[in-house]
Amino acid sequence: MNFDEAQIIDLLAAIFGSRDSKIHIGIGDDGAVVETSQKSVITTDMAVEGTHFNCEWSGAFDIGRKITAANLADIYAMGAQPTFLVVAVSLTGDETLEWISELAEGIKHEANSCGAAVVGGDLTRGPIKTISITAIGSVETPITRHGAQVGDSIYLSSLSGWSAAGLHFIINEDVSDLQKYAIDEFCAPNVDYSLAVAFANKGAHAMCDISDALIVQAAQIAKSSKVKLVFEKTGFEKDSEFVQLHELAQSADIDVWQWIFAGGEDHVFLATGRDLPGICVGHVEEGEGVIGLEMKKAPDTWRHFN
Amino acid sequence: MNFDEAQIIDLLAAIFGSRDSKIHIGIGDDGAVVETSQKSVITTDMAVEGTHFNCEWSGAFDIGRKITAANLADIYAMGAQPTFLVVAVSLTGDETLEWISELAEGIKHEANSCGAAVVGGDLTRGPIKTISITAIGSVETPITRHGAQVGDSIYLSSLSGWSAAGLHFIINEDVSDLQKYAIDEFCAPNVDYSLAVAFANKGAHAMCDISDALIVQAAQIAKSSKVKLVFEKTGFEKDSEFVQLHELAQSADIDVWQWIFAGGEDHVFLATGRDLPGICVGHVEEGEGVIGLEMKKAPDTWRHFN
Repeated sequence: MNFDEAQIIDLLAAIFGSRDSKIHIGIGDDGAVVETSQKSVITTDMAVEGTHFNCEWSGAFDIGRKITAANLADIYAMGAQPTFLVVAVSLTGDETLEWISELAEGIKHEANSCGAAVVGGDLTRGPIKTISITAIGSVETPITRHGAQVGDSIYLSSLSGWSAAGLHFIINEDVSDLQKYAIDEFCAPNVDYSLAVAFANKGAHAMCDISDALIVQAAQIAKSSKVKLVFEKTGFEKDSEFVQLHELAQSADIDVWQWIFAGGEDHVFLATGRDLPGICVGHVEEGEGVIGLEMKKAPDTWRHFN
Repeated sequence: MNFDEAQIIDLLAAIFGSRDSKIHIGIGDDGAVVETSQKSVITTDMAVEGTHFNCEWSGAFDIGRKITAANLADIYAMGAQPTFLVVAVSLTGDETLEWISELAEGIKHEANSCGAAVVGGDLTRGPIKTISITAIGSVETPITRHGAQVGDSIYLSSLSGWSAAGLHFIINEDVSDLQKYAIDEFCAPNVDYSLAVAFANKGAHAMCDISDALIVQAAQIAKSSKVKLVFEKTGFEKDSEFVQLHELAQSADIDVWQWIFAGGEDHVFLATGRDLPGICVGHVEEGEGVIGLEMKKAPDTWRHFN
């Protein structure tokens, strides 16, 4: 690394510089000073090289986008609008200024796509790359995991499983267009934040992001809301993307439901309510637990933290 | 590690549980929901095992305290009052539940000492321990680095250099009471947050925390404020702790000014203004740069990010 901290800070300040009038003080002081709403949502997410991203598989821009998306999705999943982010990064010293710049551009791209801005951060040295982002957002009526009601329908913002499919094919050299689509979803998902906004605007009773796997987070809603979530496979099968995901799974001799239910890393929103948009995949009954999500193998995130 | 994520989350939720009425939703959902003021300060700080802390030297409680103090000091350095923290941690899997619990207790202890609460976090797996904290605070009139005025005096909240002294003696087996005091300041500093509040209340024109080393941060104030900072050694020498720090330095055959000016990791507040409390160590003149802080060796943080 032939550059010093001041050069990196100048570079990042230039990339993240914003004229947003709600940012009173941005990068460069002990802390950022921003205008906040009366109620704020705060969420944080750490990504570790080797565990959450792999520089052989993904470029810096995609890594930046993906980690930022994970944070933004958590803000939207609370029925909130993201406003500001801070980013703490440890670098090994082997990175080029170009790689750091691309990482920052990826973070900025994803944040700006939601109208949010990076206002500060921390840069440190470590044996591996670690990226930790904290996002804050403004909210009026938060949507939690404990509001699901008996009689609700269950909705997904889009079909889950694509990220797991991408992870499966990423080691392949020659990939089909469909495999490439799945790999892209794994490396830097295109999150449909607008569906989370639509779920909130249409009065969703409970909502969460299913990055830990659909079955894990469905169980959390069921437990928090003291209800039973009943999933119906026909709901998933009616989605226009199902045929393609099924085809991919067959080609890999994998049960497509394994990807859909247990895949994880899908920044898809799961909500319960009445007459919501998205894919209707079941309903809420009295009782406890989740039924209809049978898998051959529990998700890796099921028992161990990730 | 013979426990799963749910057990750790339950443990952390119990430790960090708070009855603060400004916390609408705490740990356990996609994000925390809290009441925020119109203007908020946000700051983030990442600590990497081996770079910023060493489990052979420090217990988990002290590690938690120190990293939390670094964040809280940044909030106070903006003239703000810390309110909420989120904590992202990567663990190797070799930690005991007791170690994790002590880390959390250390974080809580330091946060509570300032009236702040931990409201959320992220737990992940990685090859080394990494702890990233984001703190937010409420502020009415932020105090930046660019407000220093010609004619101001320069103040420190307490004598810098103790942390560097502690780092020097930490490898010793038999230590004197004074060496032990320095080591404790390195492992888990006792930050005098009240002096930062006093600096703010008495109208400090510029303020920062000097965790990167006094000379580094004095240069930042000089550059941002377009003034010259003139330090006078007699100011430091008048402080009641100077004799002790000087004695320690002599015993180690080290120039005490090296520790004071270039030591780093002191969570001491540096401010400029008129008739402030603390130690008066110089004055502000027209010009640029910093004079009076001659060292034999530039701080490690001077050129390379840390």
